[in-house]
Amino acid sequence: MSATASQMDYVLPNELVDGMITAGGKKATVSVKNLLVRGFYSGAILGLAVILALTVGLKSGQPWLGSLLFPFGFASIVLFGMELVTGNFALLPMATWAGKSTWGATFRNWGWVWLGNWIGTAVVALLMAISLTSGGTVDPASAADGGGMWQQVAAKIIALNKTNVVTKYENLQSLGFFLAFLRGLIANWLVCLGVTMALVSKSVPGKILACWLPITAFQTMGMEHIVVNMFLHTAGPMLGSGVSFGQVIVWNFIPVTLGNIIGGMVFIGMLFYSTHRTQMSNVLPTVHDEKLERELAAELGAR
Amino acid sequence: MSATASQMDYVLPNELVDGMITAGGKKATVSVKNLLVRGFYSGAILGLAVILALTVGLKSGQPWLGSLLFPFGFASIVLFGMELVTGNFALLPMATWAGKSTWGATFRNWGWVWLGNWIGTAVVALLMAISLTSGGTVDPASAADGGGMWQQVAAKIIALNKTNVVTKYENLQSLGFFLAFLRGLIANWLVCLGVTMALVSKSVPGKILACWLPITAFQTMGMEHIVVNMFLHTAGPMLGSGVSFGQVIVWNFIPVTLGNIIGGMVFIGMLFYSTHRTQMSNVLPTVHDEKLERELAAELGAR
Amino acid sequence: MSATASQMDYVLPNELVDGMITAGGKKATVSVKNLLVRGFYSGAILGLAVILALTVGLKSGQPWLGSLLFPFGFASIVLFGMELVTGNFALLPMATWAGKSTWGATFRNWGWVWLGNWIGTAVVALLMAISLTSGGTVDPASAADGGGMWQQVAAKIIALNKTNVVTKYENLQSLGFFLAFLRGLIANWLVCLGVTMALVSKSVPGKILACWLPITAFQTMGMEHIVVNMFLHTAGPMLGSGVSFGQVIVWNFIPVTLGNIIGGMVFIGMLFYSTHRTQMSNVLPTVHDEKLERELAAELGAR
Amino acid sequence: MSATASQMDYVLPNELVDGMITAGGKKATVSVKNLLVRGFYSGAILGLAVILALTVGLKSGQPWLGSLLFPFGFASIVLFGMELVTGNFALLPMATWAGKSTWGATFRNWGWVWLGNWIGTAVVALLMAISLTSGGTVDPASAADGGGMWQQVAAKIIALNKTNVVTKYENLQSLGFFLAFLRGLIANWLVCLGVTMALVSKSVPGKILACWLPITAFQTMGMEHIVVNMFLHTAGPMLGSGVSFGQVIVWNFIPVTLGNIIGGMVFIGMLFYSTHRTQMSNVLPTVHDEKLERELAAELGAR
Amino acid sequence: MSATASQMDYVLPNELVDGMITAGGKKATVSVKNLLVRGFYSGAILGLAVILALTVGLKSGQPWLGSLLFPFGFASIVLFGMELVTGNFALLPMATWAGKSTWGATFRNWGWVWLGNWIGTAVVALLMAISLTSGGTVDPASAADGGGMWQQVAAKIIALNKTNVVTKYENLQSLGFFLAFLRGLIANWLVCLGVTMALVSKSVPGKILACWLPITAFQTMGMEHIVVNMFLHTAGPMLGSGVSFGQVIVWNFIPVTLGNIIGGMVFIGMLFYSTHRTQMSNVLPTVHDEKLERELAAELGAR
Repeated sequence: MSATASQMDYVLPNELVDGMITAGGKKATVSVKNLLVRGFYSGAILGLAVILALTVGLKSGQPWLGSLLFPFGFASIVLFGMELVTGNFALLPMATWAGKSTWGATFRNWGWVWLGNWIGTAVVALLMAISLTSGGTVDPASAADGGGMWQQVAAKIIALNKTNVVTKYENLQSLGFFLAFLRGLIANWLVCLGVTMALVSKSVPGKILACWLPITAFQTMGMEHIVVNMFLHTAGPMLGSGVSFGQVIVWNFIPVTLGNIIGGMVFIGMLFYSTHRTQMSNVLPTVHDEKLERELAAELGAR
Repeated sequence: MSATASQMDYVLPNELVDGMITAGGKKATVSVKNLLVRGFYSGAILGLAVILALTVGLKSGQPWLGSLLFPFGFASIVLFGMELVTGNFALLPMATWAGKSTWGATFRNWGWVWLGNWIGTAVVALLMAISLTSGGTVDPASAADGGGMWQQVAAKIIALNKTNVVTKYENLQSLGFFLAFLRGLIANWLVCLGVTMALVSKSVPGKILACWLPITAFQTMGMEHIVVNMFLHTAGPMLGSGVSFGQVIVWNFIPVTLGNIIGGMVFIGMLFYSTHRTQMSNVLPTVHDEKLERELAAELGAR
Repeated sequence: MSATASQMDYVLPNELVDGMITAGGKKATVSVKNLLVRGFYSGAILGLAVILALTVGLKSGQPWLGSLLFPFGFASIVLFGMELVTGNFALLPMATWAGKSTWGATFRNWGWVWLGNWIGTAVVALLMAISLTSGGTVDPASAADGGGMWQQVAAKIIALNKTNVVTKYENLQSLGFFLAFLRGLIANWLVCLGVTMALVSKSVPGKILACWLPITAFQTMGMEHIVVNMFLHTAGPMLGSGVSFGQVIVWNFIPVTLGNIIGGMVFIGMLFYSTHRTQMSNVLPTVHDEKLERELAAELGAR
Repeated sequence: MSATASQMDYVLPNELVDGMITAGGKKATVSVKNLLVRGFYSGAILGLAVILALTVGLKSGQPWLGSLLFPFGFASIVLFGMELVTGNFALLPMATWAGKSTWGATFRNWGWVWLGNWIGTAVVALLMAISLTSGGTVDPASAADGGGMWQQVAAKIIALNKTNVVTKYENLQSLGFFLAFLRGLIANWLVCLGVTMALVSKSVPGKILACWLPITAFQTMGMEHIVVNMFLHTAGPMLGSGVSFGQVIVWNFIPVTLGNIIGGMVFIGMLFYSTHRTQMSNVLPTVHDEKLERELAAELGAR
Repeated sequence: MSATASQMDYVLPNELVDGMITAGGKKATVSVKNLLVRGFYSGAILGLAVILALTVGLKSGQPWLGSLLFPFGFASIVLFGMELVTGNFALLPMATWAGKSTWGATFRNWGWVWLGNWIGTAVVALLMAISLTSGGTVDPASAADGGGMWQQVAAKIIALNKTNVVTKYENLQSLGFFLAFLRGLIANWLVCLGVTMALVSKSVPGKILACWLPITAFQTMGMEHIVVNMFLHTAGPMLGSGVSFGQVIVWNFIPVTLGNIIGGMVFIGMLFYSTHRTQMSNVLPTVHDEKLERELAAELGAR
């Protein structure tokens, strides 16, 4: 079946897990430069996609419509083999459990990619803060020029920054920290579902169709994804929300990152690892497919 | 044709039935651990998908729009070879009739997967009950904070729990029991249609497009699917609906499970078995395609 | 080209016609049991799809949106090789003209499939009549319980039953009979266009995309399709519309069946037969492709 | 590359132009009977698609939504290898410039297909005129029966007939003639773009996705396509618009046909011929691919 | 892997970069005639697509819906291997850095394609200015005839011309120049993302799905794309906006072109070049795939 399998669009569950493991192993060895550059791409493009989602959500009055268009940025990350820290929360541990990485290498990858993602979101946050306020000449709080929609988007970012740091979390103190963790857990369960669904197909239409709605879902449900949050809560203070970066880090970035780690590592990584990395004596392919494994790794940008 | 057939995206009806039988036979031998883990996945992901559907339905005022997005969870179950008890209501009997399973093994599979599905829905129900009420600090019945949409979703779950257990069924007593059975029958006729349509294609875009609308249909038509119900009627009491689990089990879980069994086993399993498992002397492939059969089995997560 | 052709997704017009003829020929020999079982499936699934279409149409106020979701049932019929009498109105005559069937075998097929389709719609009509009225405890004409949408659907079925039998046709007497015939002709021109478009692709995404909108079109335009009508005009009297089956048969089933026959046999069957069953000396494939022909036949459920 | 290329879905620009030329050459030799039958199909199906577009446009109040569904008829013409005169305005000249046809053969093809298209639209116009007015018993101008939507469609056809012949063109005399020509030019630029995009893919999903929106575009933008006009301006007088066929021919059919010729022949045919029929010494395939060329020709219904 | 790889739909990141470089190298040698003709096509088709987007946006009151249909023109440019100056801002530098082009050849390509794009937009601007105003007989500022929607489109073009040249940029002087540059940077980051996503798939459905939403995004977000602007700000003065071409060039065309160059060259070209043009010793394909590279080049119209 080996030759045929590699021409099939659909990847069987056990092949999928093999590919995820190999990919995680390769990612553990990517250079810091590439982690930062690829992380920059992912953060930046998610920032741009958030602006699209907010614009469509505000204009239509239906935020889920914005979230229905939002995943194009995520899809490009998967297709181009870029680095997104939340996806790596699932892949690197799988490789570690399988002996193809170490926890040290895992944390190294997570750290640099987290940083790269933030730099990417921060650069786009800066560009958009300038553009949305026409270089500071327009106040997001007022409304009077050709950039009416831009002002609304800026005001929405400020509101989200305040609500998703202060109102929902800081105000509730330790319960708030736990809630941010919890919603981070759910968000990255869905995001890593999106990553995994993208890998279940070897064709671009299959990858795009499969990965799309889990991404729409986490955003529509109001869950917390660290890279999207990096954008919102870096742009918010830049636009004058009055929220400090200290508040952002304590009440959002830390609990959300922890929640994202558990959501991805446990509910996707561990779950798939435990049930689909089985001995395959009673089902084809009985021959371990080296080539497919490497192909899947390559798709994940590991080289 | 053997080589060519396995490269075609479209699976002929008789090959499809062969694959369903083999898959059912393999599923009959899956370990309890895997039935529970894969069942957990399916229950949990359907719970998350229900939250998406309710959110979009409430925000747009068009519940069918929510149901149009809902099937992404179901699609992931099929693509990842996870275990959904309602699909197994069709597949295991087919294997049993063909001599590749036994009724004992069938009931064993159904029992563990039913349990795994419930555990999955219960865990997500707990997580969402905490998140929707911000850890109990927000009353679903009132409306005053940044989580306004979350409160509406919580209130909707409570209302569905009351209506779909008490109003529609318990209040009508034996007629209610019969109606729950009947709507369960129709729901799983459609869900197993979705399972079967996913198998009619070997590519991911084909599987996704084909399986989608039968799932949208059962939900839009207000029919009763046991795994979706596990989520709603476990989350409802958690959110304070006042409905007891005794009521839930007697007036919903039991009749709906029975209806789901008949809908899947008779109207998909028996129907396809009786008409498409025919002698194929006058049509290709005349050679029984062992490989395809095993591939289809593998897609259904049987190993 | 033979090997290559059978891997192409797209079926050339002359290959398509060859496949339609062979399929018609095979269908002429299918057993009565299989005609009834496969006919039952098709009738039942169209009945369920009508309920979806009515629900979405009523909820959104845009019946064409319901019709945009409706074709999933039709698509499953084509993908699963089931029997739909209206599609056979085009295929069997083509086989007969080509000497691969007889008019006797054609009428035998049409008769049993017509009956199987009706039984399928009647069973779903009964199930839905019970469900929509909660076992007769809710009057479609009033409106007061959790099943408000169900009552509207029931009321809509009653209204369609009255309008599409009495108002539009019986009241106009012979002109009405002619109009029902005419709208049946147009409906099945479009439905058989859907059948043919499903066959123009060998992949599931291609089949689904291609067959979809002709089905949406006939329903949105208000044309008359006998199998959809079997459902509506069997459910209507069951729900208490007061229209008699005698009226239904005379003023709807007979003229619509005749119109469907002409629409399918003449405007698709005869048209394609006359122009694309040509000598192919100046275009490939010059070799008659036996394998493809049989494959197309198999897709149509002929064995 | 020859073998591989013919398995790729995507057709390279120079292969595309070779295929267009060969197709044009074959079309130049199709029999009058086949030109008329295939032309009849295309005219008829566009007429039916116009009714769908008008119905959806009226019901939703968004004509562009109707135009978004409209291209299914056009797609079927391309997939079935039927004859549409506007597409031939681009293909036949390309064959003529390449020495594979003559201007005489080109005009012969255009003449018969133009006639076949008109007959097709006229037959559907007659059927729909009867159906929309319930055999003349309902006046499009009034509004009182179960066919309320049908009356609106009929009234819309009458309005379009008057506006698009008299108001926009006849009333402006020579300027009007020029405007009809101009809008015909733009319409067929887009329609022939649709034809060409359908040929850029060898799979049915690719053909459908690619050809769709240029067709939506010309209709949404209010441009003038002769075959759509044949339907509207034949149905209009039948429904009692009071516009004479003389007016229709002088102020719409003649200038629009001329505009369609220029739009297709110059802005698609000549443009592609001049830039993509290049010597291919520096790019693969260096070998002229005979087989692909004939395949593309066959797809265009030339045999 | 070589043979298999060329049959896969999905292009690995390093293969993608190799293809982009080769394509850029070939484009550096295309003749002036072909640059102008292919540039004309791209400018013209984007002009037509803008009219579609404005019409749908105005009719629905949701400009993003218009932008959701807009990318069909862009998709045709990629599929047909035409020349779009903004895409070349990314590709030619990549070839130059790789030693397959020179900066001189790069500027030569950019100059001629910029001109070709403008000519294309100008011709369509002229045709549409005549059509939208019915040859000057209708004033965009008033509203009274069958062309009501056309007047609104004309008025919208005039408003955009004034706002996007004078209000947003000229009025803010050097800050305005910088803002136009900045929004041009973001726009072409997204457009070149679309180009790159089109190349990540080798099938037409994959190319279309992948390239679509980045194009929707830049337009919905109100960013500045030079070729779209060429159309708007050439049509605006023709329709009587009173904005001079001097203003257009200084306050829009120059800063937007510069921003587009940086957005494409740095944020797509340099980013991909720096991270994915790596030594591939630890991942397949280890053999440099000459054929794929040339295929990708051919897709980009380079010959």
